[in-house]
Amino acid sequence: MEIGKFEDRTEKGEALVNGAESLLGTLLAGGIDVCFMNPGTSEIHFVAALDGAHRMRAVPCLFEGVASGAADGYARMSGKPASTLFHLGPGLANALANLHNACRAQVPIVNIVGDHAGWHRRYNPPLAADIEAIARPFSKWLRTSGSAQDVARDCADAILAARSAPGSVATLILPADAAWSEAGSVAPVSPPPRPSMPGASCVEESARLLRNGARSAILLGSVALEGTALVTAGRIAAATNAKLFAPFAFARMTRGAGWPVAERIAYVTEQAIGQLREFRQLVLVGASAPVAFFAHPGQPSLLAPPDCTVHTLARPGEDCVGALDALALELDAQSSHPQLQEAERPEIPRGNITLSGLAAVIGAFLPEDAIVVDESITSGRGMMAATRGAPAHDWLVNTGGSIGLGIPLAVGAAIACPDRPVLCLEGDGSAMYTPQALWTAARENLSVTTIIFANRSYAILRGELANLGKNPGPHALNVLDIGRPDIDFVSLSRSLGVPAVRVATLEEFAQALQRGLEGAQPNLIEVPL
Amino acid sequence: MEIGKFEDRTEKGEALVNGAESLLGTLLAGGIDVCFMNPGTSEIHFVAALDGAHRMRAVPCLFEGVASGAADGYARMSGKPASTLFHLGPGLANALANLHNACRAQVPIVNIVGDHAGWHRRYNPPLAADIEAIARPFSKWLRTSGSAQDVARDCADAILAARSAPGSVATLILPADAAWSEAGSVAPVSPPPRPSMPGASCVEESARLLRNGARSAILLGSVALEGTALVTAGRIAAATNAKLFAPFAFARMTRGAGWPVAERIAYVTEQAIGQLREFRQLVLVGASAPVAFFAHPGQPSLLAPPDCTVHTLARPGEDCVGALDALALELDAQSSHPQLQEAERPEIPRGNITLSGLAAVIGAFLPEDAIVVDESITSGRGMMAATRGAPAHDWLVNTGGSIGLGIPLAVGAAIACPDRPVLCLEGDGSAMYTPQALWTAARENLSVTTIIFANRSYAILRGELANLGKNPGPHALNVLDIGRPDIDFVSLSRSLGVPAVRVATLEEFAQALQRGLEGAQPNLIEVPL
Repeated sequence: MEIGKFEDRTEKGEALVNGAESLLGTLLAGGIDVCFMNPGTSEIHFVAALDGAHRMRAVPCLFEGVASGAADGYARMSGKPASTLFHLGPGLANALANLHNACRAQVPIVNIVGDHAGWHRRYNPPLAADIEAIARPFSKWLRTSGSAQDVARDCADAILAARSAPGSVATLILPADAAWSEAGSVAPVSPPPRPSMPGASCVEESARLLRNGARSAILLGSVALEGTALVTAGRIAAATNAKLFAPFAFARMTRGAGWPVAERIAYVTEQAIGQLREFRQLVLVGASAPVAFFAHPGQPSLLAPPDCTVHTLARPGEDCVGALDALALELDAQSSHPQLQEAERPEIPRGNITLSGLAAVIGAFLPEDAIVVDESITSGRGMMAATRGAPAHDWLVNTGGSIGLGIPLAVGAAIACPDRPVLCLEGDGSAMYTPQALWTAARENLSVTTIIFANRSYAILRGELANLGKNPGPHALNVLDIGRPDIDFVSLSRSLGVPAVRVATLEEFAQALQRGLEGAQPNLIEVPL
Repeated sequence: MEIGKFEDRTEKGEALVNGAESLLGTLLAGGIDVCFMNPGTSEIHFVAALDGAHRMRAVPCLFEGVASGAADGYARMSGKPASTLFHLGPGLANALANLHNACRAQVPIVNIVGDHAGWHRRYNPPLAADIEAIARPFSKWLRTSGSAQDVARDCADAILAARSAPGSVATLILPADAAWSEAGSVAPVSPPPRPSMPGASCVEESARLLRNGARSAILLGSVALEGTALVTAGRIAAATNAKLFAPFAFARMTRGAGWPVAERIAYVTEQAIGQLREFRQLVLVGASAPVAFFAHPGQPSLLAPPDCTVHTLARPGEDCVGALDALALELDAQSSHPQLQEAERPEIPRGNITLSGLAAVIGAFLPEDAIVVDESITSGRGMMAATRGAPAHDWLVNTGGSIGLGIPLAVGAAIACPDRPVLCLEGDGSAMYTPQALWTAARENLSVTTIIFANRSYAILRGELANLGKNPGPHALNVLDIGRPDIDFVSLSRSLGVPAVRVATLEEFAQALQRGLEGAQPNLIEVPL
């Protein structure tokens, strides 16, 4: 126990551990040693306690959505939770959009929110709000500590809840008086229970379907898209002639040369339906049945053909790795050779900037072991194809559709994996929800290269508008146009401490990208489109 | 009815009015002709309908908190609601922090949130969330339109709810299928009911107290701080030797030369207690009993002395103007001469930048009829004193304590009052929650001069940390330090299309301020401290 040192402090006549100290100590005891934070007065005792908890890496964020998005990226890459610290209801509110994405990514986060002292809250001071009500829609576990004595146990429970499969957001509300009052000590933190194996019949039925000769697909979600689970899925696919898919929105995918390929389901509903049309059977592993991102008049919500048999091998939160192992055993596929992606790089293109040219450059230079954060929306639709044969890497996308996740996610991934280069592919519209994340990247000197695809437009919405079949008028187009003035991302980035360049040709882009990825420092490339 | 033109469209065989069109038409019918928006795919029919509703000024915002803060500023200065448009639960979530401030300001806002089509929501697509649960803590009125036919009536109800005193946030959730399906027409919008007069006994008791010779204070909130109501309060104060106060957090105050002075209650609890210590009686007009902003160990929550009689003349939402008139009549004070602030300007200081020097420059140059938005936190504590004798102006502050309101509030105020100069006093920490508002100021070419007080720190928290009486350690100080890297607000501002300068002396500041206020264009001045 790092915090407290009860005996020393008692002998010296110093204050015993307070609630904030017992919270920090319990976080550390539970293996949580990163806190993305934007505190206020009601959190000042937590802040003060940081100096008794040196192992806690406290990462300041200028906006709460940066902290929640970074906690998501950290969890995706480290497999364990970070903590956050927010200032009452409105501070939490600013974190919610990226907590929504984190909920959809099913990552663990211990989400700590300060509140007024209990006796003060009843007078309804300006910052009072119903924090539990604000947190509830985005918290699988939620508790307000009743007193300083409860904080350590509550924190241990929050950690356990966050880490129980599938990972989730656990919100602990810490009233100021619970933070500053005398508490006990840290609490022991139980390890999370092993995820439960799906029943034997799920495995047997999956095997029966995959053997029956009908055209089959396997949709992998959650950890089934990563590492050895993906390899096992590849063996099963090879043994049964099934095709592997990934949802459009996934938390993390291992990919590149030497890895099995899971084809990502497209964003556009018609395309997604086209990808799945030939399949009569769909086995789900850690994924839900695929659903259109948005409804459109006359279009179905479900993407698999109506006559497709959909069977769940393992639900998210069940033991996907164990289930795939059991299925491979059942199918006698353990030593099947999965079809692996061959190493290949696009030719390095030259000349004018085009989306396909940009994708090819990225495919040509993506370094081994890179972490790619992809929030490039319409500009990035060719990115995955162009990088499929690049050296092995991880690909992270927006899981909940709330844009403004990319740059924060990259911050969290870089803190989780300080030795890996992080490449953040970012649309200009998306970037502008959380540009403050660049400052945290600069403060923490993170190896993140951010590419801004600057088409000066909410291009995806212009597409939707065009699809309505009416001639869009100037009033509608005006609100989808984010030029006039054009945002100068080079100045914006530099203003936040991140060196930046603007490129005008594919050669310049290639050069900037190489330099950026090799630099082991935050940097940004603006690509006007 | 501007939208629709049913007969024309029916004759031409065009589609009848859809839900989005009936919504826009009803907003216009209800006098709402500004919409601060950040739409997405589920709102595309609302966007498409803008071209049939030319009178609606659609103001694009890069981040939702800009839109909600701007709607607050617009309402404070125009006295009527703007509408907003947000993209599902996460888009709304990003707006909540400034909706919290708007709730505390008791301003009217018609808050429109798109949702998935009803049939699609049940499949739990990535962006699905419980929008009603997200909206509820910050919405006095809340409804989800059940069908396109309901939208116009729902919108009319929302407008009525928002405008009923005291103003409030009314949230209307618009499912995509309700937006795109055939609807009726626009709905008639009822005028809001007159605010109710407090009972005669409230007036009589107020008069009795103010006449009884005990030292009395009158705390003015809501519209009692504005215009003729403030003058009436001044007459009452003059006739009864009472002192006028304003809460620390108020929505709008008329002040400057020629206006009665309401002394603002201090942020720091001890100071606030000191201000009120001498008073034995406190009459509340549109305000609640004053409460400490934050609790501290051993400090009281209530700021008035324990033996002070607190009496409510009019609650927020009651007819404060009528109540003050009735009280003046009861006291025979209608023709008393209120004590008015004399015209005075500070001497123009020179030399090194100091907080008092900055305040004096602002006091020296504040133009008549200016709108001052004050989110300068610790840097701005001398601002109100230095500007008290400047020509008449309005002063707007953060009502809910959720920082990141200032620049958006200034945007909304400038749109409400295009002929008045707006001066936004902004702390650097506060500015970084919603810097995207600068882009909207540029896009709309608003007369807003923003001053950034760049102390590179959450200075208010450093003060709180110091107050703990422990020697703050480097880990605690690290997260309150927002330098390293220093944010370059000049580059940041220019990157978003707003011309900016950095000043190093009070002379430079005075020159930049004069130019900025005269320029009738957005501009920013960074003041390193």
